[in-house]
Amino acid sequence: MSIIKALQWRYAAKRMNGEQVPDDKVKSILEAARLAPTSSGLQPFKMFVVTNPKLKERIKPLAFNQPQIMECSHLVIFAGWDTYTIERFEDYFAHYENERELPKGFSDSYKTSVAKQLTSWSNERQQEHAAKQAYIAASFAMVEAAVLQVDATPMEGFAASELDKLMKFDQQGLKSVLLLPLGYRDAENDWQTGLKKVRKTEDSMIEFLD
Amino acid sequence: MSIIKALQWRYAAKRMNGEQVPDDKVKSILEAARLAPTSSGLQPFKMFVVTNPKLKERIKPLAFNQPQIMECSHLVIFAGWDTYTIERFEDYFAHYENERELPKGFSDSYKTSVAKQLTSWSNERQQEHAAKQAYIAASFAMVEAAVLQVDATPMEGFAASELDKLMKFDQQGLKSVLLLPLGYRDAENDWQTGLKKVRKTEDSMIEFLD
Repeated sequence: MSIIKALQWRYAAKRMNGEQVPDDKVKSILEAARLAPTSSGLQPFKMFVVTNPKLKERIKPLAFNQPQIMECSHLVIFAGWDTYTIERFEDYFAHYENERELPKGFSDSYKTSVAKQLTSWSNERQQEHAAKQAYIAASFAMVEAAVLQVDATPMEGFAASELDKLMKFDQQGLKSVLLLPLGYRDAENDWQTGLKKVRKTEDSMIEFLD
Repeated sequence: MSIIKALQWRYAAKRMNGEQVPDDKVKSILEAARLAPTSSGLQPFKMFVVTNPKLKERIKPLAFNQPQIMECSHLVIFAGWDTYTIERFEDYFAHYENERELPKGFSDSYKTSVAKQLTSWSNERQQEHAAKQAYIAASFAMVEAAVLQVDATPMEGFAASELDKLMKFDQQGLKSVLLLPLGYRDAENDWQTGLKKVRKTEDSMIEFLD
């Protein structure tokens, strides 16, 4: 299925039917996120894939009791780095040099320049920057889900600091930024199923300067 | 081509060869962005597609003279709303009601609740929120570009406030958030072409809680 057709099909399902998404599809969706580009390649986030019903039960009230938390097959939580530290850059560039079979220290000057810039930012700006990188990854996951005809509902509305405590993200230097339940739409019970997709017109969104 | 294969192929080309991306592919890439989901459906951003060489020349120094600005075929600038205003919500929900053929005022209580929440945020938080929605759209565009074998290089490194002045974004209530040159990699002159893609391992990025 072409991406455009898949995106016309997709919508943010508010009710899901509990059906399990097969492992190979979940794997592909997460792989799209893993392959997404990020600033300087840092991938400053982690993904937590929750299927444990007891844990989902504890997350549900933190997400305004929205039914897709329980009704989804896999709840993916995207959590961004809470701060940019030199240790995190060291880790990344060591991995980078290793993967590309470069001499140790090859990236030192680039690393120093990236670290200098990003650590100079306010903590809030660092977190927003990391969150945006997680959004790119989550978006790649959403497109792959749509092509695989899996529903994926991006959710920003949740009690982030409470979720961070529950998930012990604070102990891992992470902040939750987006929830992405994966599953299958419950067409009978979701009043939004089948409604016309509303998007702004091309003319109102896109300007050509040629 | 499957998305995963396309994403393995894609990378952030630093040199492009000037070849034109056909109009139908540009249209598809922008359509993927237009179809992307956003918070409450607001789509709080615009896309500017620059092909005018004189304008590109003026943008180049604001993007650290990176060659892909001139060498790309189409330079897409994503610009987010600089503030959430009740007028903008009115516009959106009028369009929404019209598209879904709902009675005028049908969405008033939802609109009021969204507007109340989003306008209560600091201006900085509003801008970051709008920027994230633009990132989702830009990400959808990147995936579609990859599947069409068009190179797309997300660029955060540019002088945003100077670009806003040049593009008169300030007069339109917009802030530039991301550049996305579209074109074709110049494999001969881009030292990064063909290098092994570096990503963190699944194990270090993904945690399953089941």
